[in-house]
Amino acid sequence: MNRGGRQSGLSLAEFAARLRLVDHHVHGAFRGPLTRTAFEESLNEGSTGPVPSGTTSFDSQLGFAVRRWCAPLLGLPAHAPADDYWRQRALLGEQEAAARLLPAAGVDRWIVDTGYGGDLLLSPAELAGAAGGTAYEVVRLEALAESLAASMAAEGATSGRGYADAYRDLLRQAAAAGAVGLKTVVAYRAGLDLDWSAPDPDAVRRAAGGWLARCAAEPAGEPGGPAGAGTGGAQQEGPRLTDPVLLRFGVHCAVEMGLPLQIHTGLGDRDLDLHRADPMLLLGLLRQPAVAAVPVMLLHCYPYHRQAGYLAQAFDRVYCDVGLAVNHLGARSAAVVAESMELAPFGRLLYSSDAWGPAELHVLGAALWRRAAAAAAQSWVDAGDWSEPDARRVLTMIGRDNALSAYGL
Amino acid sequence: MNRGGRQSGLSLAEFAARLRLVDHHVHGAFRGPLTRTAFEESLNEGSTGPVPSGTTSFDSQLGFAVRRWCAPLLGLPAHAPADDYWRQRALLGEQEAAARLLPAAGVDRWIVDTGYGGDLLLSPAELAGAAGGTAYEVVRLEALAESLAASMAAEGATSGRGYADAYRDLLRQAAAAGAVGLKTVVAYRAGLDLDWSAPDPDAVRRAAGGWLARCAAEPAGEPGGPAGAGTGGAQQEGPRLTDPVLLRFGVHCAVEMGLPLQIHTGLGDRDLDLHRADPMLLLGLLRQPAVAAVPVMLLHCYPYHRQAGYLAQAFDRVYCDVGLAVNHLGARSAAVVAESMELAPFGRLLYSSDAWGPAELHVLGAALWRRAAAAAAQSWVDAGDWSEPDARRVLTMIGRDNALSAYGL
Amino acid sequence: MNRGGRQSGLSLAEFAARLRLVDHHVHGAFRGPLTRTAFEESLNEGSTGPVPSGTTSFDSQLGFAVRRWCAPLLGLPAHAPADDYWRQRALLGEQEAAARLLPAAGVDRWIVDTGYGGDLLLSPAELAGAAGGTAYEVVRLEALAESLAASMAAEGATSGRGYADAYRDLLRQAAAAGAVGLKTVVAYRAGLDLDWSAPDPDAVRRAAGGWLARCAAEPAGEPGGPAGAGTGGAQQEGPRLTDPVLLRFGVHCAVEMGLPLQIHTGLGDRDLDLHRADPMLLLGLLRQPAVAAVPVMLLHCYPYHRQAGYLAQAFDRVYCDVGLAVNHLGARSAAVVAESMELAPFGRLLYSSDAWGPAELHVLGAALWRRAAAAAAQSWVDAGDWSEPDARRVLTMIGRDNALSAYGL
Repeated sequence: MNRGGRQSGLSLAEFAARLRLVDHHVHGAFRGPLTRTAFEESLNEGSTGPVPSGTTSFDSQLGFAVRRWCAPLLGLPAHAPADDYWRQRALLGEQEAAARLLPAAGVDRWIVDTGYGGDLLLSPAELAGAAGGTAYEVVRLEALAESLAASMAAEGATSGRGYADAYRDLLRQAAAAGAVGLKTVVAYRAGLDLDWSAPDPDAVRRAAGGWLARCAAEPAGEPGGPAGAGTGGAQQEGPRLTDPVLLRFGVHCAVEMGLPLQIHTGLGDRDLDLHRADPMLLLGLLRQPAVAAVPVMLLHCYPYHRQAGYLAQAFDRVYCDVGLAVNHLGARSAAVVAESMELAPFGRLLYSSDAWGPAELHVLGAALWRRAAAAAAQSWVDAGDWSEPDARRVLTMIGRDNALSAYGL
Repeated sequence: MNRGGRQSGLSLAEFAARLRLVDHHVHGAFRGPLTRTAFEESLNEGSTGPVPSGTTSFDSQLGFAVRRWCAPLLGLPAHAPADDYWRQRALLGEQEAAARLLPAAGVDRWIVDTGYGGDLLLSPAELAGAAGGTAYEVVRLEALAESLAASMAAEGATSGRGYADAYRDLLRQAAAAGAVGLKTVVAYRAGLDLDWSAPDPDAVRRAAGGWLARCAAEPAGEPGGPAGAGTGGAQQEGPRLTDPVLLRFGVHCAVEMGLPLQIHTGLGDRDLDLHRADPMLLLGLLRQPAVAAVPVMLLHCYPYHRQAGYLAQAFDRVYCDVGLAVNHLGARSAAVVAESMELAPFGRLLYSSDAWGPAELHVLGAALWRRAAAAAAQSWVDAGDWSEPDARRVLTMIGRDNALSAYGL
Repeated sequence: MNRGGRQSGLSLAEFAARLRLVDHHVHGAFRGPLTRTAFEESLNEGSTGPVPSGTTSFDSQLGFAVRRWCAPLLGLPAHAPADDYWRQRALLGEQEAAARLLPAAGVDRWIVDTGYGGDLLLSPAELAGAAGGTAYEVVRLEALAESLAASMAAEGATSGRGYADAYRDLLRQAAAAGAVGLKTVVAYRAGLDLDWSAPDPDAVRRAAGGWLARCAAEPAGEPGGPAGAGTGGAQQEGPRLTDPVLLRFGVHCAVEMGLPLQIHTGLGDRDLDLHRADPMLLLGLLRQPAVAAVPVMLLHCYPYHRQAGYLAQAFDRVYCDVGLAVNHLGARSAAVVAESMELAPFGRLLYSSDAWGPAELHVLGAALWRRAAAAAAQSWVDAGDWSEPDARRVLTMIGRDNALSAYGL
């Protein structure tokens, strides 16, 4: 329990600003180059279509936050007009913009979900190269299943036999290759209001057979829609897994692996039935003894972050964050970070940006979280509720140490 | 993009105080005169019965706000005791009280829902006459259906044939007569947890036949309960539409008209199943391409206003407000207005009072919204998150320009 | 309407600090002695198991609040380290710790739920003896049913005949013995998403027969799990009532008695399906005329406290509190108390701690509520929204007078 006497000359805001973070759920930055249209679409996580004509994604809390926090990193005054911002960003190019933005995040461990975006994005190693720090990979369960289905269907192996074993093999290979966690987007594919029991082997075989037969009947590699900003939703090509039996099978296989399991809850794009992504709907899963043995990370959670805090209090290895929301709420992120610090034990809160695409999002998440968490803690220190050493210790736990411990880094 | 250099000497509070508003969802003020009982009942939107004995509606955030903001407009000190307030109001009479209160709202466009309250309330033209500005009408889908049913049943036309065509004709007549929008209270009548597909013509005919037959079998014009403060709920007389097929039919006809569609969500009176008025339950409607082509205004939303913000971000023509809540929350309205400024793009937030009855509510909504929105914006300017010109621009968008554009005024 | 001129020299914080409270929902304090493990488990209401190794319940808002508010009462500096706190507490012993903590709550009426914890806890009279003030009893409907079932099953009376009459007799005896209210934890046993109609006598007899037969077939008095901190959940021994018919029967019998009815909603331990404890799910009960005739107290409510406020506004005899949450949220309790003061009429808000076990919880609830309510009121007085006499009056209503009136004390 380091009570941090060393930093006692620093305000909490300064302390938080210097803290090296673990971003425990993030995606790659764009490989670039980018059109203004694609950039603006990437600022609206919710909408999966083009920005409506006559409007701009800059007119949002996120857009204002980009102009306030990122403009100075690109050599412009804070609050530079949107047109100026885009012009400067285009002038610098994606690579140079990223080189200025990413290191400013002050993150030294990036835990990267590689399951969506493919070649559009920097790989974990490339992200760490551009941003500094070390990158780790989280493997997305549904993407793994879909790549398996594509190859089995291509080989004409459509009976469903062998699917379960092959899927488990792929998970073991991912772990052997160094994956530090697994992630599910079952919230997008079927909602969280599932029967969470483990499906029996016959049911898995039958469901796999049905899916593989459909995959084989469709031309492989057909293009999905345009790449939106959504990070959990539509596949860009190939078979799409929506069968509840196979989705549940994937989650139970993940639990068998013993790796930390990230679960998308709350906020996402319009493909998501938000109210069916309430983390409370995971109760039937979290109560299973096998699940209680692995760390479970509830991602995003907003606007159900209080419910997530309840689960973190109730279940010994459940963690939660307000990633994605921190970015999209901009000036309001301070309020939501404070709300997330209610029921959840301090040892079960994590930092993440859930940045995907524009490097602005990788740095903004960090800047907004530092500011929000320090402001909340400072207000409690000022009111006499917390001691300052406690505040520094809690900021370090949430920003860094909880993730190091949960992922065993 | 007027960056408002002209107003640069004004604080945001002063800027907001001078902004001429569009109240995009409001009802008429009482034609008067009023008993104290009726006045107090009108202050409790939630309860549909009399104020419990030994208590007073003044003992609420709304009651305190009336005494603080309206007492000075009636010539009393702020926080004048409830009894003094009522005595002065009664002395002035409804017309004089309204003449003092309504213009203080600083609203120059009133978009008036005429579907509930009838002769108790000023007409749109009378409201504009007393308050200043211009009034526009929004037609309530269920009220239109009920007037059609009453006349068809009176004529013995109870087969259901002709209902669909006659309903569409009435909508076209409403549009031709200048209605700028349509409104549905399906949340009150069946909940929002509906199958939102368009019903087929046969189903509509059968449902209409059943309803019309029931209407013909009942004495027409039977009185409903006492006029409560509820603005969405009980009909005062005649047939009441609760059939889900006909309710859905109404909504789909409205969408065909291309006019902005207001949808009651969230807060209402005790007749409402609040949890079945969560705007997330509209997903199945909002995802339909025909619906995406018209502006959809989510009204009230509280306590699901964060969910409404998610929908406004996800769907390109979805707007939201926190009308009604702004009034009833009084001193707490500042917090809720700030919460409404999270995910929703700034171009998709609207101001409304949802005032119904006492002229206090027409002015309070405006006063509380101005104060709340300016305070939120000022706090972000002070923290360096927003620039002051941006803040003025956003206040103008929410208070006025978004509605002018969405309703094509 | 005492406008409190007498106290006009006091700040609202001082006024609130001196206010003698009614804690309208509380449990006994530990009879002691206590291990550190048991103490820490009692600080985590949500988790029903042991504190995970390597962590401490002190690392939470509640733990920080204990160190800040209770350490000085035990002779330590505020924010004393957890180890120091525990050492001092153990040194003093449970009785002496309670003797220092309990009177500091400044509560002069304790309304005690005796339905969970049995001999582990001080009786109401013992609590009042240690804390000062007067204690009253609230009888838990399910505990009464379970004691009845145990004795009927032991006598071989398993037909179900006689159960209904005997249950009503027990309720009458409880009222005759001075119970001031009844409480249901149906949220734990079946969720609040019930058909809330009164079951018919045959259905009750059949359900009772089934349950009694099961009770007779099981060894009586079998131990439940370890005593957790949960105050609503697992029985420690004997038959457990989960049959929805008998649960509903209990609630309807309670309503017949005319006593105030406390209903657990919202926050509880991991045995609870939190989303099925949303107070909105009580609509079908609250709309019944018989229920409208008795005071109904919605307990806890968090994170659905805004929904609870809606119900308090909509139904004339519905009250609500944010007990339990006030303690567990520590520094954040101020925000949640303010949120609870939105729609609910001021005459329908109550104070409770829901303390169970450690005497820290009895005093913390009071300290945190006083601070939170005074801070909210002060902010509104400072902004000109409320007058100071009104603020004092509302604090007195919520902290004391509403409960005195509702329970007829």
